[in-house]
Amino acid sequence: MDIATLKELHPDHFARATAIRALSMDAVQAANSGHPGMPMGMADVATVLFEKHLKFDAANPDWPDRDRFILSAGHGSMLLYSLLHLTGYEDMTLEQLKNFRQLGSITAGHPEYGHAKGIETTTGPLGQGIANAVGFAMAEESLRARYGKKVCDHYTYVIAGDGCLMEGISHEAIGLAGMQKLGKLIVMWDDNSISIDGDVGLSDITDQKKRFQAAGWQVVECDGHDPEDIDRALTQAKSSKKPTMIACKTHIGFGSPKQDTAGAHGSPLGPDGIKATREVYGWPYGPFEIPQNILDEWRAIGARGAADRAEWSDRFTSLSPNRQSELTRLWQGEAPKKLASTIRKLKKQISEDAPKMATRKSSELVLEHVNPVMPENIGGSADLTGSNNTLTPDLGIFNPSNRKGRYVHYGIREHGMAAAMNGLALHGGIRPYGGTFLCFTDYARGAMRLSSLMGVPVTYVMTHDSIGLGEDGPTHQPVEHVAMLRASPNMNVFRPADTVETAEAWELALTSKNTPSTLALTRQNLPTVRTEHKMRNLTAQGAYVLREAEGKRQAIIMATGSEVEIAVKARDLLQAQGIGTRVVSMPCWELFEEQDEAYRRKVLPAGPVRVAVEAGIRFGWDRWLFGERGKREKSGFIGMHGFGASAPAPELYEHFGITAEATATKVKDLLGGNWAPDPRT
Amino acid sequence: MDIATLKELHPDHFARATAIRALSMDAVQAANSGHPGMPMGMADVATVLFEKHLKFDAANPDWPDRDRFILSAGHGSMLLYSLLHLTGYEDMTLEQLKNFRQLGSITAGHPEYGHAKGIETTTGPLGQGIANAVGFAMAEESLRARYGKKVCDHYTYVIAGDGCLMEGISHEAIGLAGMQKLGKLIVMWDDNSISIDGDVGLSDITDQKKRFQAAGWQVVECDGHDPEDIDRALTQAKSSKKPTMIACKTHIGFGSPKQDTAGAHGSPLGPDGIKATREVYGWPYGPFEIPQNILDEWRAIGARGAADRAEWSDRFTSLSPNRQSELTRLWQGEAPKKLASTIRKLKKQISEDAPKMATRKSSELVLEHVNPVMPENIGGSADLTGSNNTLTPDLGIFNPSNRKGRYVHYGIREHGMAAAMNGLALHGGIRPYGGTFLCFTDYARGAMRLSSLMGVPVTYVMTHDSIGLGEDGPTHQPVEHVAMLRASPNMNVFRPADTVETAEAWELALTSKNTPSTLALTRQNLPTVRTEHKMRNLTAQGAYVLREAEGKRQAIIMATGSEVEIAVKARDLLQAQGIGTRVVSMPCWELFEEQDEAYRRKVLPAGPVRVAVEAGIRFGWDRWLFGERGKREKSGFIGMHGFGASAPAPELYEHFGITAEATATKVKDLLGGNWAPDPRT
Repeated sequence: MDIATLKELHPDHFARATAIRALSMDAVQAANSGHPGMPMGMADVATVLFEKHLKFDAANPDWPDRDRFILSAGHGSMLLYSLLHLTGYEDMTLEQLKNFRQLGSITAGHPEYGHAKGIETTTGPLGQGIANAVGFAMAEESLRARYGKKVCDHYTYVIAGDGCLMEGISHEAIGLAGMQKLGKLIVMWDDNSISIDGDVGLSDITDQKKRFQAAGWQVVECDGHDPEDIDRALTQAKSSKKPTMIACKTHIGFGSPKQDTAGAHGSPLGPDGIKATREVYGWPYGPFEIPQNILDEWRAIGARGAADRAEWSDRFTSLSPNRQSELTRLWQGEAPKKLASTIRKLKKQISEDAPKMATRKSSELVLEHVNPVMPENIGGSADLTGSNNTLTPDLGIFNPSNRKGRYVHYGIREHGMAAAMNGLALHGGIRPYGGTFLCFTDYARGAMRLSSLMGVPVTYVMTHDSIGLGEDGPTHQPVEHVAMLRASPNMNVFRPADTVETAEAWELALTSKNTPSTLALTRQNLPTVRTEHKMRNLTAQGAYVLREAEGKRQAIIMATGSEVEIAVKARDLLQAQGIGTRVVSMPCWELFEEQDEAYRRKVLPAGPVRVAVEAGIRFGWDRWLFGERGKREKSGFIGMHGFGASAPAPELYEHFGITAEATATKVKDLLGGNWAPDPRT
Repeated sequence: MDIATLKELHPDHFARATAIRALSMDAVQAANSGHPGMPMGMADVATVLFEKHLKFDAANPDWPDRDRFILSAGHGSMLLYSLLHLTGYEDMTLEQLKNFRQLGSITAGHPEYGHAKGIETTTGPLGQGIANAVGFAMAEESLRARYGKKVCDHYTYVIAGDGCLMEGISHEAIGLAGMQKLGKLIVMWDDNSISIDGDVGLSDITDQKKRFQAAGWQVVECDGHDPEDIDRALTQAKSSKKPTMIACKTHIGFGSPKQDTAGAHGSPLGPDGIKATREVYGWPYGPFEIPQNILDEWRAIGARGAADRAEWSDRFTSLSPNRQSELTRLWQGEAPKKLASTIRKLKKQISEDAPKMATRKSSELVLEHVNPVMPENIGGSADLTGSNNTLTPDLGIFNPSNRKGRYVHYGIREHGMAAAMNGLALHGGIRPYGGTFLCFTDYARGAMRLSSLMGVPVTYVMTHDSIGLGEDGPTHQPVEHVAMLRASPNMNVFRPADTVETAEAWELALTSKNTPSTLALTRQNLPTVRTEHKMRNLTAQGAYVLREAEGKRQAIIMATGSEVEIAVKARDLLQAQGIGTRVVSMPCWELFEEQDEAYRRKVLPAGPVRVAVEAGIRFGWDRWLFGERGKREKSGFIGMHGFGASAPAPELYEHFGITAEATATKVKDLLGGNWAPDPRT
C-alpha cells in the first residue's frame, strides 16, 4: 500500500504510525547516527500489533503474563523506544529519545536489556532475538502446563529482518520452534528486500516462506503497510498450533527520499531528507513533537491491557498462598531454601564415599539431587545427552505432547540452545542449563556473550574439557576455550577438581543472580580430592589451599579441574623429597579475583616458587604466576602449547608432559640449589 | 534395499562396499572408540561415487584438477580412511588403519587436514565440511572462469549427516551456494534418521528436501544402498546448473545388530556384534583382511583417473610458460615478487603524506595497491562492505553472471564466510580475505579455529575493533575479542597503529604460509605515527620501539592499534615533565613472542615502569607487564574492565579513562617519588 492510499483509507492509523516514523528519524538525526529505515518501514506493523494484539500494560511493565515483544532486528531500536514512549512506559521519556545513543541514556544504539522496561532482551547481533524468542515461548508453554493458564498464557512476538533470517542461528531457532510446535510464537519478517550491501538478492535468493514451512511453521503474508491486512495476518497467526511467520512486505525508509535503498538502513536522512519526508507524510510538527491527540491515542493503547492485568492479578491472588509464594520465588529467580542443605548433605556423603568419577558424572549426581527441589530448572543438551550427563530421571522430556517435561532435546544446535536458554531465563520463572562439549563453545559464543552482557544466570554444562577427551582428537579438544571464557566479562568459569567442587560450583551457578556460569567438566574419571567435609562452599572463594605444605613451604602448585589430581601427586613426590609444597585448587578465577587482597595473598604468599598445571594454554596464567607478588624467575607452567592430538587420554597427558613427575621436576628446577631436604625426612 | 537383495542383485558392488564396512568396524573395535555406524551406512554411496563418478588418481593425490571429496560428517572418518587405503593412496597403509585413533598415526579420530593425502579439509565440528565445500566450489568456478576449463573443471562432493544439516552454519552455506548457483557442488545427505540422542525426530522435523529447494538447490532422492539408484542420482546431480542435494536414504550401522539405532553411532559394535555382522554380510575374513580380488578391484578404481590426469598434464604443459609458472605460483601459495616492492613503495608514500585515517580505510588503501598484483586474492564481507572497506575497484563482483569477479557478497553469514574462506584457501590457487565487525568474531569462531588448526593462511578483516565503534554500543563493541584471538593457537592477531603498520600487517598476512591472520582495524581516524620511512617490515618483529625516551628512560608505554596515538601523546606529556618515556608499539604479540629473548629484552628492558594501553580487557597483558623482567609493583594497565557503552567514541574514551592524561598519571603514580625532572628541562 502506498502512502497516499494509506493516508486516505486509514488516516488515524497513519498518524499513529507516523508518530513512530517521525520520532525515529528525528532521534537518528539528533544522534547523527543510527538506523531510521527499519522503524519507518515497520511502523505500520508495530502500530497494529500494539493497538490490537499485544497484551501489555505500560503502567505495569513487569506483569509476568504480558505478551513479549522482541525486536530481533535490534538496529531498529528507535521503533521500540518510540513505542515505549508513545504508549507511556514511565522511564522512556521524550528526553531519553532526544538523547538516543548518548552516554548515560537508556536509549542505547541497540536495545540493551535492563536499560528500560519493555526491553525484553538485548538485540543487535543479528538472529539472537528470534532465537531468544524460542526460549521465551518454551518458557511460556512450560509454565502454562505446570502452573495453569490462570498464571501464564501469552504470546511471544518477534520482528526479524533479512539479516536475522540469513544468520545460521535463525535456522537453529526455527528448526527448534517448528519441532516444538510453539504455536504462540509469532515472527513478523520485515521483508524489505534490502540489506547493508544493497539488494538482498546480491547475497541471497532463499524463498523464506518455503523455508519456514519446511521447518514446520505456518506462513502468512501481508502488506506491511496495510493495517487491515496486518490485523488479518496477526489474527490468523494467533490461532495456529504451529509457530507462525508473517511475511510483511514493506518499504525500508517508507516515505523518505531513500525509500527502498540501502541508504535508508544505517544513516540519518539528513535535514533535507527529513524535510522532504515530513512533506510526504503531511506531518507539519517539529522534531520530537507529537500532537496531543495522537499521543492521547497512543497512551490509551498503552493502558489497553490494564483490565486484563487486573483480572490476572485477581486470579493470581486466588491461588493458594503456597502457590503464590512459590511462583513469586520463581519469578524473582531466588533459589529455594532447600538447595543449600541438599548440597551440604551431598558434599558430606561424597567426602565420605570419595568416589572416583568424571566431573560430568559428578554433575549428573548433583543434578539428580537438585532438580527435584528446583522446579525452575530446565535442562537440555545439544544432542549430547549421554555425554554431557544432563538428563536426570525426574525431568521428563519437554515436547509438544509433554509440556510438563523439563528436559529439552535441543538438537545439534549449540548456538540456538544458548540463545534459547537466554530467552528461558529472561522470561522469568525458569533457570535453564544446557550442555555440549566445551570445544563447541565456539559455536555458541554469540549467545554466550549476550548471557554475560545481559547478566542472565544461565548455566553452560561444558563437558570433555581438555585433551582428556582423548581419541576424538584436536577438533574436539579444547585448549584455548577456558582462557577465552575467562577473558569474557561477567562469566563465572568453573573447572571443578572433583565431585565436591562440582557440587559447590553448581550451588554457586544455581544461586547466581546476574552472572552466567560455565562448568568445564571432564570426560575422564577423577579421584575425590576433597575428602575432608567442609560445610562452607570453598569454591565460592575461587581458590583455596587444598593441601598445605608439610615443613617449610618451598613451592605452591596451582591447578584446576582434572589437573588438581596431578598437582596433589606432584606434591606427594616433592614432600617425599622433603620439599614442602602447597597445592592450591583454583576452580573459579573470577571469584578469586573478587576476594580481598589479604585473602589472595594468604592463598598465594610471596616467596615459594609457583607452578601452574592446567591442560590448556598458558594464556592468562601469568596473572597468578607473576602477579600477586610472584616472580617470573620462580614460576613455571605445565600445560598445552598448541592443539592436541588423537589418542587415548593417558597417552596424551604423557605425550604433552602434563604429569606429576614433570610438575615435580619443574618445581625442583625452579628451586635450583635453593631447596634442602626437610630435616625430618 | 535390504542386504539380501543387495547381495543378490549386486554381489560385486556389495563386496567392495563391505570391504569399507568391515575395515570401519574392525578399526573402531581395535581402537575401542569411534563411529562405525556412518561408514557402514554410507559405504554403498561412497563406493558408487568413487567407482563411477569421482575424478581422482590415487597415485597423484595433489592433482589440482581432481574432484574434491569432503566428509562433512567427519566422525565417519573410517569411511574416508578405508576409501583411501582401498584405492591405493600410498600413505594410507593397513598399518595406519590398525592404528586408528592412536598417537602418531595419520588416522585421527576425525580427519585432520595435512595428516594424509586425500583429506581435503579437517572435519568433525559439524557443518564445517559442507560450508568449506561452498568455498571449494567457488574456487573452482573462479579458476575455471579465469584460467579456463583446460586447467580447472571439477566437481566438489560432500557427505553430510543430520548433524551437519541441523547446525546453523549449514543454513549459511546452502544459502550462499544456492544464490551462487554452484552447479558443480553435490551434497549427499546421509538420511538415516538417527542422531546421538536418538531419533532425529526428537529434536527436528525439518523437511530437508523442501528446505534445500527453498535455498535454490536441485534435490534428488535415492535409496542409499542401491548402487543403480545412487548412480542415477549422481548422474542427475552432475548435469544441474544449481547445486544438488541428494537425499540418500540409508540405514546407520547397516547389517549390524545395532542397525537403525543411536547405539551404532559412536561406539564399537563389540566382538559379538562384529561376529554377527560378518555373518549377515557373508564376510568370512579376519579383522582388517581384504581378499586380494576385492583389493584389486579397488586399486583399479584408484587408478581409474590416471589417463584423465595425464591428459590434464598434457593440457597444462601446452600452456605458455608464463601461464604455467603463474598457476604453479598460485597453487603453491607463493606471494608474487611484486608484493614486497608494492608495499614498500606505499609505505614510503604514506610516511611522507602522514594521512589521518581509520585503519579500515588504510586497509582499503593497501588492498587497492595489492589486489591488482595478486590475482589469487578473493575478497568479501558479511554484508558490511562499506564498513569493512574490503572492496577495491578492480575486483568485480563474483556471482553467477560474473565468475571472473573476485569479490563475494557473503551476506549476513559470518560463520559461513569464514568456513567458505577455509575452503577457498584449501582448494588452492586462491588467497581469500573477508570482513565483518571484530565483535562478530563470535559468530565465526567455529570456522576460525579450523583456520588455525589446519594452518590455512586466510585473512580476517575485522573492523570496528573497540569502543571506538561508538554509538552502536556494547553489543557491537569488542572488549574481550582481541584477547580471545590471542588465546587461539596459530593465529596472528594484528592491531596496527596506523596506515604504515596496516600495510606491514597485510604484507605478513599475504605472505603467510601456514598461519591465518586477523587484522583488527579501527572505525575511527588515527594519525600516522610511523612518519619516518623504514624499508624493513617492523611489524614482522611483533613489537618495536616506536619512540625512544629522551633523557633517562624511566617509563615504557606499550600500546596497540588506536591506543598507540594515546601512548605517544602520553609520552609527550611525560617528556614535557622531564620523564624519559619509551613507546613500544605491539601490533602482533604472536610475532613478538617468536623473537629471541635478546630482542624482547631490548624492546622491554628491566628497570623502567611499564604501562600498557589498549581499549580492551587486560587479560593476557600480564605477560608483558610482569613478564620479560617487568615487575608487578611497577606496572599498570589503561583499558577496559568490562563491557562498553553507547555514545560517541571520544566520549567513551574519556568515560572509560583511556586517555593520554590518565596514562601519564598512571606512569607518574608508579614512579612515585622515584622520578626526578630531567636536568635539561
